[in-house]
Amino acid sequence: MSDNLLVRRDVSFYLHDWLCISSIAEADTIDAFIDLSEKLAEDRFLTHYKQSDVTEPSLGPSGVHILPEISQALAQYAELGFFSAGFPEDIGGLGLPFLACSVSFAYFAAANIATSAYPMLTVANARLIATFGTPSQIEKFAKPQIAGRWFGTMCLSEPQAGSNLADIRTKAVAEGVDEFGHRFLISGNKMWISGGDQDASENIVHLVLAKIPDTDGKLPEGTKGLSLFIVPKILPEGRRNDVVVAGLNHKMGYRGTANCLLNFGESQGAVGWLIGEPGQGLRQMFVMMNEARVNVGLGAAALGYRSYRLSVDYARDRVQGRKIGCRDEGSVAIIEHPDVKLMLLAQKAYVEGALALCLYSALLVDKGEDEESSALLGLLTPVTKTWSSEFCLAANDLAIQIHGGYGYTRDFSVEQLLRDNRLNAIHEGTTGIQAIDLLGRKLLRDGSALAILRRRVRQTVERAGISEQLSPFSTQLISVWDQLALALSELRSCAAVSAYNNATPFLRAFGHGVVAWLWLDQAAVAVSSSAPGIDEKNFISGKAAACRYFFEYEVPRVSAWLAPIFNRSDLIASISSDVF
Amino acid sequence: MSDNLLVRRDVSFYLHDWLCISSIAEADTIDAFIDLSEKLAEDRFLTHYKQSDVTEPSLGPSGVHILPEISQALAQYAELGFFSAGFPEDIGGLGLPFLACSVSFAYFAAANIATSAYPMLTVANARLIATFGTPSQIEKFAKPQIAGRWFGTMCLSEPQAGSNLADIRTKAVAEGVDEFGHRFLISGNKMWISGGDQDASENIVHLVLAKIPDTDGKLPEGTKGLSLFIVPKILPEGRRNDVVVAGLNHKMGYRGTANCLLNFGESQGAVGWLIGEPGQGLRQMFVMMNEARVNVGLGAAALGYRSYRLSVDYARDRVQGRKIGCRDEGSVAIIEHPDVKLMLLAQKAYVEGALALCLYSALLVDKGEDEESSALLGLLTPVTKTWSSEFCLAANDLAIQIHGGYGYTRDFSVEQLLRDNRLNAIHEGTTGIQAIDLLGRKLLRDGSALAILRRRVRQTVERAGISEQLSPFSTQLISVWDQLALALSELRSCAAVSAYNNATPFLRAFGHGVVAWLWLDQAAVAVSSSAPGIDEKNFISGKAAACRYFFEYEVPRVSAWLAPIFNRSDLIASISSDVF
Repeated sequence: MSDNLLVRRDVSFYLHDWLCISSIAEADTIDAFIDLSEKLAEDRFLTHYKQSDVTEPSLGPSGVHILPEISQALAQYAELGFFSAGFPEDIGGLGLPFLACSVSFAYFAAANIATSAYPMLTVANARLIATFGTPSQIEKFAKPQIAGRWFGTMCLSEPQAGSNLADIRTKAVAEGVDEFGHRFLISGNKMWISGGDQDASENIVHLVLAKIPDTDGKLPEGTKGLSLFIVPKILPEGRRNDVVVAGLNHKMGYRGTANCLLNFGESQGAVGWLIGEPGQGLRQMFVMMNEARVNVGLGAAALGYRSYRLSVDYARDRVQGRKIGCRDEGSVAIIEHPDVKLMLLAQKAYVEGALALCLYSALLVDKGEDEESSALLGLLTPVTKTWSSEFCLAANDLAIQIHGGYGYTRDFSVEQLLRDNRLNAIHEGTTGIQAIDLLGRKLLRDGSALAILRRRVRQTVERAGISEQLSPFSTQLISVWDQLALALSELRSCAAVSAYNNATPFLRAFGHGVVAWLWLDQAAVAVSSSAPGIDEKNFISGKAAACRYFFEYEVPRVSAWLAPIFNRSDLIASISSDVF
Repeated sequence: MSDNLLVRRDVSFYLHDWLCISSIAEADTIDAFIDLSEKLAEDRFLTHYKQSDVTEPSLGPSGVHILPEISQALAQYAELGFFSAGFPEDIGGLGLPFLACSVSFAYFAAANIATSAYPMLTVANARLIATFGTPSQIEKFAKPQIAGRWFGTMCLSEPQAGSNLADIRTKAVAEGVDEFGHRFLISGNKMWISGGDQDASENIVHLVLAKIPDTDGKLPEGTKGLSLFIVPKILPEGRRNDVVVAGLNHKMGYRGTANCLLNFGESQGAVGWLIGEPGQGLRQMFVMMNEARVNVGLGAAALGYRSYRLSVDYARDRVQGRKIGCRDEGSVAIIEHPDVKLMLLAQKAYVEGALALCLYSALLVDKGEDEESSALLGLLTPVTKTWSSEFCLAANDLAIQIHGGYGYTRDFSVEQLLRDNRLNAIHEGTTGIQAIDLLGRKLLRDGSALAILRRRVRQTVERAGISEQLSPFSTQLISVWDQLALALSELRSCAAVSAYNNATPFLRAFGHGVVAWLWLDQAAVAVSSSAPGIDEKNFISGKAAACRYFFEYEVPRVSAWLAPIFNRSDLIASISSDVF
């Protein structure tokens, strides 16, 4: 084990010691799958990390050309069955739990997030068709993706419709029925389509949100008028569909992933088949949304995790300066300086905290059939997505700081890791959108999920109670959740509109409350182990130290985020946009 | 006035209403100088902002070639006398205050930080020679820089000596005396030399920190053995000096500034002349350090400021989504959404707060001859440098978020502004170094500067006392400074070594205390004005709103940063580096 990407002891801690994956799958099978993931990620994904940042996708007359190393890595990924890992065996899958697939994905994301975006989208696409499609749609459009021969995309945004999908104007006109279902001609412009074109797969399956005009030719208003269509790049009959790449976006990071503007139906109309019933498009997308958002959080966690490990390596190697108060002694590695230790602790608390959060949520996906898990997953999803994106970006930023001037050069990877990670707080719903989702849909509308969460917090407090070193944190954790509950009732008493004025600071406070809970839970499991050997002792001390850091340095921030809520600040409501 | 870079009303507020520059210079002269700065910055610096990011400096057989647009802009800058602005008239300068030069620099930094780095370094170099050099050194090496014909560099770091200059190994061997003073042969390798080579100026003056070996040929230990040398690229006799570019650094941002590895004296030895006495090198550098660090802060503020203005423009233009609770009404510009308003307020509070801090410090430079100003400048310098670098970077990050997916593309400028700004927390002393400077040299060693600062805080509280809307913030400000004083006495009671374990969180808390003070002071001046006209009313409301944001949302963070100090956390002292 090289521990270059994720530390294997840490992964086994999450999977076995903490989340007990053996209760839902055979432990040896999972370990073998993780072994294979680690090896492939290192051998084929990590190797072109820098090159895929420099050699961006290009648009030529025959379409988008991507770096050949990306195509080769994905061919290997397909050959080894990774596309199929999480699907049921009856449609060509391996039937592995989502949790195991998530850990596998974290290895590939840590190695090369841009390359791993292609299978991530493909799997989500195929899963949606497998869930809502007809048998012939599954056979024709999902199975080649599960085999990794075709790739998939999600086509939601349009130039005038980003966060607000109600404004979508892509039109789908009925053309009758054929063996794949209700056939439509699609026309419209889609933005930000990751993997919108590439030359790595035999075909591309676009899932397109569009509106079916009424008998007067008018498009229905709002999101309830959205339907979802399967629009392949190459039609089953073998000819090219009317889907044209209008341009490529040139991004800050994530550059290996071709991000396209796609024009559908500029000439004869793009052929597509309706999935399920008309008007169900957004609902169908949203059923997949929890998974997609957990994956975004996981990608962010993986990018942060890698920058943390690179920071530890650099800080152990780089000799600079004396210990404070020891001017006559020799120079030391910078890991001995208090400021560097503090930065490493912050990184560790952020990235291992985020990984814990994402994997906990992944396990809830696996347990999605029981109502409690499903409600809790809904509540945690906006937190998982946002907290990982924001605080693992902070870990990336600290990595540059720890590397000093070197970190600011492209000779090291840490600046690219930050650029790659910056997308995660934007796509699949920005932080502001997640904040409204958490506060409105997940908390104010119905308090039952919060009750489940608080029950689990109490269970953790009980578990931690047996350890003397953790007991002050138990007290702090209870108080944080009391504060959050109080803030929530404060918000409940506001006018409906003004409750949202501080939704984002509330999301941050809530996120810290959730991660504090998971740190205490991790630490309680870690310190209760018997710890033979020095490596294992260090591992346990590391978990305890990060937990302590989180409670001593991070948890006090909760009060600061909640202050404007408790002080009933009407600043946002009172200012005009002319003051800027 | 286009207000594309800095809002002119804001600049005039700082210069005239708040800092009353007319007490040290003729107001009309200053305004004409600022007019000219604004115009040149827009016409010649902003125009190649993106191109200088893409077309990086290249190293060829004849040296480093930079983008011709950079050279042309700097030629114009020289022609209009900008290099000379801050120098006394007797050596060819215009004799303008540092404060006016700082505002001018802010325009150029906002337009193009990488291009403006060349004159920034040149001016610092010339000022050092003008301060410590002999008349013949000033005549030969400073004056051509003051005229903008030659450029200058600072050569401090070496591969093994970054933050710790005591480890410098560059050697200077005496070679006699000539018309320019004590002549030496310099040999050694220098890193991170901005402007280390370029083809924009006729000559380059390197200021090189090196050690003079003792009679046994041994280099003296520590920083007291450092001396400073003038090492021109082309010698007065016309031949090339023995200074070779060993390579260029490829950076995350700031790409227009050629950043070089320089080898001195690999062949016959590089000729250099000692400035002042041997062993005074670091002291000489440090006399310039306050200015250099204020300039770094100012560059950071300018980059943040520009990203804030771009965010405001984008948020006014971009229509997306309905107002919360008004689903049936039409779409609105995103500036109407609470979350966007909150982000804009945070940006405004950060960038205008940082600009205030930097300009306040610049005025202290001008008043440097009185002891109180000089002591206060010393205390504020690490805060000015760090607070601006950290919080204006946060403003850059918010700018990407406000721009959404568009902000993540290179079609917009906000991602480049972030990449450019990321350097500022690293160069001229990292945040960790500034934290030790603040706590050790500026506070624990001698409390007199703090007493001066607290006196000024009380003056602000008195000034704000007449305004009802500001009085809650006065109370809060007093309490913040009491907290900071308490934390300091807590730190004083620690063992000398462990006091530094939380130096960086302390610096952040202290920085927020300082900026809170300056926000209240700005707001007190703004709200006391008579405000004719709607634009002026909006301007004043904006200052008041940003002040309010700072007290309601930011000041509560102070307690969080100080928590580990008050809780006497021994986490950093207690953990081994093996836990990572």
